[in-house]
Amino acid sequence: MIDKGLVAAENTSREAALRADYDALGAHLDRRGIDIGALKERAKGFGVAVPSWGTGTGGTRFARFPGEGEPRDIFDKLDDCGVIHALTQATPRVSLHIPWDKAEPADMLAKAEAVGVGFDAMNSNTFQDHADHPLSYKYGSLSHMEAAVRAQAIEHNLETIEIGAKLGSSALTVWIGDGTNFPGQSNMGRQFERYLSSMKEIYKGLPEGWRIFSEHKIYEPAFYSTVVQDWGTSLMTAQELGEKAKCLVDLGHHAPNVNIEMIVSRLIHAGKLGGFHFNDSKYGDDDLDSGTIDPYRLFLVWNELVDAEGTPGLDLAHMIDQSHNVTDPIESLMISACEIQRAYVQASLVDRGALAGFQQDNDALMASATLRAAFRTDVEPILAMARLEAGGAIDPVQTYRASGYRAAVAQVRPKSTGGGGGIV
Amino acid sequence: MIDKGLVAAENTSREAALRADYDALGAHLDRRGIDIGALKERAKGFGVAVPSWGTGTGGTRFARFPGEGEPRDIFDKLDDCGVIHALTQATPRVSLHIPWDKAEPADMLAKAEAVGVGFDAMNSNTFQDHADHPLSYKYGSLSHMEAAVRAQAIEHNLETIEIGAKLGSSALTVWIGDGTNFPGQSNMGRQFERYLSSMKEIYKGLPEGWRIFSEHKIYEPAFYSTVVQDWGTSLMTAQELGEKAKCLVDLGHHAPNVNIEMIVSRLIHAGKLGGFHFNDSKYGDDDLDSGTIDPYRLFLVWNELVDAEGTPGLDLAHMIDQSHNVTDPIESLMISACEIQRAYVQASLVDRGALAGFQQDNDALMASATLRAAFRTDVEPILAMARLEAGGAIDPVQTYRASGYRAAVAQVRPKSTGGGGGIV
Amino acid sequence: MIDKGLVAAENTSREAALRADYDALGAHLDRRGIDIGALKERAKGFGVAVPSWGTGTGGTRFARFPGEGEPRDIFDKLDDCGVIHALTQATPRVSLHIPWDKAEPADMLAKAEAVGVGFDAMNSNTFQDHADHPLSYKYGSLSHMEAAVRAQAIEHNLETIEIGAKLGSSALTVWIGDGTNFPGQSNMGRQFERYLSSMKEIYKGLPEGWRIFSEHKIYEPAFYSTVVQDWGTSLMTAQELGEKAKCLVDLGHHAPNVNIEMIVSRLIHAGKLGGFHFNDSKYGDDDLDSGTIDPYRLFLVWNELVDAEGTPGLDLAHMIDQSHNVTDPIESLMISACEIQRAYVQASLVDRGALAGFQQDNDALMASATLRAAFRTDVEPILAMARLEAGGAIDPVQTYRASGYRAAVAQVRPKSTGGGGGIV
Amino acid sequence: MIDKGLVAAENTSREAALRADYDALGAHLDRRGIDIGALKERAKGFGVAVPSWGTGTGGTRFARFPGEGEPRDIFDKLDDCGVIHALTQATPRVSLHIPWDKAEPADMLAKAEAVGVGFDAMNSNTFQDHADHPLSYKYGSLSHMEAAVRAQAIEHNLETIEIGAKLGSSALTVWIGDGTNFPGQSNMGRQFERYLSSMKEIYKGLPEGWRIFSEHKIYEPAFYSTVVQDWGTSLMTAQELGEKAKCLVDLGHHAPNVNIEMIVSRLIHAGKLGGFHFNDSKYGDDDLDSGTIDPYRLFLVWNELVDAEGTPGLDLAHMIDQSHNVTDPIESLMISACEIQRAYVQASLVDRGALAGFQQDNDALMASATLRAAFRTDVEPILAMARLEAGGAIDPVQTYRASGYRAAVAQVRPKSTGGGGGIV
Repeated sequence: MIDKGLVAAENTSREAALRADYDALGAHLDRRGIDIGALKERAKGFGVAVPSWGTGTGGTRFARFPGEGEPRDIFDKLDDCGVIHALTQATPRVSLHIPWDKAEPADMLAKAEAVGVGFDAMNSNTFQDHADHPLSYKYGSLSHMEAAVRAQAIEHNLETIEIGAKLGSSALTVWIGDGTNFPGQSNMGRQFERYLSSMKEIYKGLPEGWRIFSEHKIYEPAFYSTVVQDWGTSLMTAQELGEKAKCLVDLGHHAPNVNIEMIVSRLIHAGKLGGFHFNDSKYGDDDLDSGTIDPYRLFLVWNELVDAEGTPGLDLAHMIDQSHNVTDPIESLMISACEIQRAYVQASLVDRGALAGFQQDNDALMASATLRAAFRTDVEPILAMARLEAGGAIDPVQTYRASGYRAAVAQVRPKSTGGGGGIV
Repeated sequence: MIDKGLVAAENTSREAALRADYDALGAHLDRRGIDIGALKERAKGFGVAVPSWGTGTGGTRFARFPGEGEPRDIFDKLDDCGVIHALTQATPRVSLHIPWDKAEPADMLAKAEAVGVGFDAMNSNTFQDHADHPLSYKYGSLSHMEAAVRAQAIEHNLETIEIGAKLGSSALTVWIGDGTNFPGQSNMGRQFERYLSSMKEIYKGLPEGWRIFSEHKIYEPAFYSTVVQDWGTSLMTAQELGEKAKCLVDLGHHAPNVNIEMIVSRLIHAGKLGGFHFNDSKYGDDDLDSGTIDPYRLFLVWNELVDAEGTPGLDLAHMIDQSHNVTDPIESLMISACEIQRAYVQASLVDRGALAGFQQDNDALMASATLRAAFRTDVEPILAMARLEAGGAIDPVQTYRASGYRAAVAQVRPKSTGGGGGIV
Repeated sequence: MIDKGLVAAENTSREAALRADYDALGAHLDRRGIDIGALKERAKGFGVAVPSWGTGTGGTRFARFPGEGEPRDIFDKLDDCGVIHALTQATPRVSLHIPWDKAEPADMLAKAEAVGVGFDAMNSNTFQDHADHPLSYKYGSLSHMEAAVRAQAIEHNLETIEIGAKLGSSALTVWIGDGTNFPGQSNMGRQFERYLSSMKEIYKGLPEGWRIFSEHKIYEPAFYSTVVQDWGTSLMTAQELGEKAKCLVDLGHHAPNVNIEMIVSRLIHAGKLGGFHFNDSKYGDDDLDSGTIDPYRLFLVWNELVDAEGTPGLDLAHMIDQSHNVTDPIESLMISACEIQRAYVQASLVDRGALAGFQQDNDALMASATLRAAFRTDVEPILAMARLEAGGAIDPVQTYRASGYRAAVAQVRPKSTGGGGGIV
Repeated sequence: MIDKGLVAAENTSREAALRADYDALGAHLDRRGIDIGALKERAKGFGVAVPSWGTGTGGTRFARFPGEGEPRDIFDKLDDCGVIHALTQATPRVSLHIPWDKAEPADMLAKAEAVGVGFDAMNSNTFQDHADHPLSYKYGSLSHMEAAVRAQAIEHNLETIEIGAKLGSSALTVWIGDGTNFPGQSNMGRQFERYLSSMKEIYKGLPEGWRIFSEHKIYEPAFYSTVVQDWGTSLMTAQELGEKAKCLVDLGHHAPNVNIEMIVSRLIHAGKLGGFHFNDSKYGDDDLDSGTIDPYRLFLVWNELVDAEGTPGLDLAHMIDQSHNVTDPIESLMISACEIQRAYVQASLVDRGALAGFQQDNDALMASATLRAAFRTDVEPILAMARLEAGGAIDPVQTYRASGYRAAVAQVRPKSTGGGGGIV
């Protein structure tokens, strides 16, 4: 773990500048009628879950280039997640992936407590074959033609719930890769019926207080059709399942040009928005670091969420879901958590009264300018002050680098193999 | 109208070749266990509606280049539609657009009867200002911020229904251009609520036996957000309205890469598919001639429809909706009707028993090959024979050209002005 | 014109807050080792041309909804352009469109001088038919099958140069709508050869010191193929023409997902970048206001340009090219000029030394963070102070609204007709 | 290998039906003035190279699901390629990938001769780390920041040429994954310069009579920018390198909606078209089987190539490049070779005289109909007869299945491991 003394020393070196920036911003916001203290409290209240698998280096079908000191198992991953939360104070929970993170629940709970994090939504996996599953998911899982494969996939989801229940989780995210690579490979209607039927079995197994999230993805790993390809199908699924079923929106899982914030608005209207997988992308499901490609889009999503605060029944699960191919995953996850938090705080300072007035008057120019005025406000001092006051680092990345954490774990974690991607 | 003697003479010159092709195809299909006669009967039973406005030359925001002898009013348009149906025997109905086609209903009925066509779904128009409407749709219509504008738009839709009722139509297609050009211009959630509220008023006005079609479009004329932007929103709309509300799929109104045949399958599952606007496109909502850019996509859509034949409650309205910018609209509409009919017949000869078997065996290669085997079968002799036997032309375009129809109407229809598009 | 006293009064009401913000930003930048004064001077030196046609309300093929007091002719447009420059001090030149802006050159020069603007690149128009041109461009212009049409289009371009020469312009931008709507409509290779041949004729007519800009556009108004569809074809064109030919990049003229800043980089490498048409877009060539949809993309383009400063031969022409459908065009153009200027100033404060170091070390995370640190800096005080010192308005839009300019011109400029778009 | 007696027996069972279909098609084409015999000869002359790696099962970053009897090495792969050519008579050459296919050249030549195939273009690989290369390509190869990595990558390309020279190959295809995942990660201009510099070193090493192909790809494995991202950059590369450098077009490597046949036309104009990697795709670089998603697009590409026959210097290398994730790779490659050949033969029966006439008259409708008339002609009898006469199988897939080849090789080739994709 990161030494608290080091964090304090690093913070001390940056505190004067931060206070100057914070005070100046406070004065500026005051002139705009905004209370910086209230924003700081919102920043402190913010949290986004970290994906356990995100602590390892990702790759593509072409190759994976491992990094130094990659985590060997869920306990190493929890160590890394603990570092991320300690420095950012913005990632209080970890989202697990079964079977990748299978271990003795009691040991996981103890480790989590030791590193200061809890557990978020559980993720099942039927897009890969499991060593201990007799049947293959090559031709599908929950929507497979054969009942035996579907039963195996259902059973895996129920087991994932069971594990989660022991860890204090209360939600299951279901994303499947089921689909086809050829027109005609499957009857799309009956394939969807089989999927719904399987989901209903899983739904029955939800413990009291649990929710199930349906996650759509336009394509990949299936390249002609995907069973849950868009929010429309995800909505139909959640509608057929019932109250506990909600839709999860991954920012990278849409067709080109699609207006994602509008989908957010529609799912809120339908009472079916359940949460997010945050990341950023330029071409496909690139799984790039949140806020690095189109930060305004991230802001516009948060603008919808802040606008909808107070909607009855709206209770969102936020998680990062990225692939870190060329960076230290801990650094990327820290920066991403901060970028998501940034968009949230920026959206929180939109002058909603003025905005409503401009909308009433069809004053598109000033309405748009109102959003941009919030977006271009540099809220970094608010985020940094929130971190400082909560015990985190003013500058998480530089503090992390100063700690020598990566080099230290690389001493005990052996170098992982590269992997050849999926193409050979 | 086209002289029947001319049609007969043109057909005579092509009949021997057609019979040779038809017999050869019949023998070939017989070897595949397919009865060509049954396919021919299906071809004869096929019909797609022609859009009245499609008989004029279309344009873009940059310019419109008028053609010769463009129709002056709905009566000229009905003449043109009569020609299209006379030669193709595949377009028995015309879809009207109000206010463009406003006229005395009795006169319209008489003209329609004279030219041998009936009336299909009615289309309302609140994406343009009307000369006799006091309020502007610049900032929306059914979802407008102001109740008075919404009321005007609702009233227009009710009037459109009223006109349609007098003409024997039994469906209203609602497509609106409402949306925004700037993030923040409108609150997307409340805008949708206003839209739904307006649609409920129109729904109440549906006569017995009528249906209302909700048509989505990803963008244009609104460029940042569109109220009914995709099939998910269209589905929500149809669900909230009730039984008589269905979704209409326009082939050009989707985000890039979207799998349209899958949307068709999903809407069938939901019991909400109402019909189609056929066209083709390469980039956006290009409104190109059906089947000219990606004929296999058209086939795959029909493959879903033929597969779903017999689904309880499935009763589809098919219409062409294209913009003819560089061709004679009559020729484009004739060719398009034939291309849509072609895809329908090709989809009808898919060996569905074999396909189901391959799907059962996860034999993706042969399942896909089964579709392609149907698609690559040249069914032109079936289409031509169906036309010949029904009184149409073996070759509609050449027969039309031989008739001199365009030159004749150009004598009485004055040259229309070009128009400058929307940019100046 | 806007009364100077009003501007002064408006500025006075905002000056104290501005000075406070400016000083705080100056102190902050000083801590980052950046001289705010130097940035302010760069802001003052910035200029982007305004398109004369942008002062009118735009539209789509569906409709055009006119605004109040739209300019009747080039003299009204120059009045509007003068207002834009007076308040923003960022738009010193106007780009003309022939034949729309045809008038007596001496009168135009006098008017321009009176309103305080000059003339930028000239734009020819062969995507519409001209009242005084005997031949139609329905099937193309510079690439038309018939030599007579090509000759007419060439002659029009030469005339446009001639007009520009009298006005002090020194560049011609050529954008044509030539292309096809059907596969097979034209032989794409020979069509391109005809285009090149025509362009060579125009190139020969360039006066001493002039340049010609080739502008590409992926689609619209042609919907299957476009003669100059992408930067590759534009580059080939500029290469074949010679030294005076450069490529102009319009931000909205690309396929979905394309990395535009990379195209900028490549054209700089090739020595062929000539300038920009600024706007923003979400779906197609939406022509939305600059910086309103993806401001980070605009920043990344400017990041390339600032990085390339000092490249021998690099001399860029910057112009706004937008369609204002739902706003007051003067307001949109003022805001857009400021957003483009903002991105330029943000790009100017990238720590390029640090960036180069991170790039050298393959430190992707910190390299990316370096760009974002510049982007998120709120440079509004720099822009506003630059305007104030140059005689413009601290807040151009509010000052403009306070002036009552639009209402005043609406008194003398009659209401324009809506136009029905291209679809009817 | 496949027993010739089996092939003969399979053919015998299908020959009567084929001859009936062939004769009927011959009679039909004769009525259209087309000689079926000439088309059959063109079909026989057609050949497309098979990628050695395509004989293995592909995968995605999520998973790879191995098939039965996957080839262990280049000798197994050559066996599979021999089967493909024996049955289709359309794939006379194999394209190799180094280091995957490294072996003793003499042994490879002997094996190739034994199975009846030759060697096509060589492919180098610097998108993965090599076991025997000391430096990693994680941050690039030919464009890497460090000279040592670039030198290693250059040396690998030179070695690939050397191997190819011993095998009778005469071309090197260079595709690199170099690019970035973050704005700012690399200076895009200098990165391109380093790439060009490396390519010049490789170019110098080309033996007499060799060519080098530059292959572009819009994204993946790099997700923000790719050094050779489009045909414009590929063209610039080929121009800077010299005469022996050409551009290779992979059908799946383009932005959404891009008109690929137009790129083909432009590269022919520039004298820089070198060849193709055939496949099909719906969303991104899906690497689906050729002709299974958009067969008309494949036809339109071939339409350009057939139209350009006889262009001085045009000498194209055609190769399949697909990922077979859910099918038997041998079956997919056979079907794909036939689909590519089908498009070639269909393009060969376009009535080019009539087409030119329609183009001359701006008769877009008939020009387009002329292409479609060729496309919809079912040329299967021509392809099958060409195969039969050349010693292949009338029905390659059914003959292959009847042979039991896969089961037989699965006896000697051990089951390969699944691999976990790149994400863990």
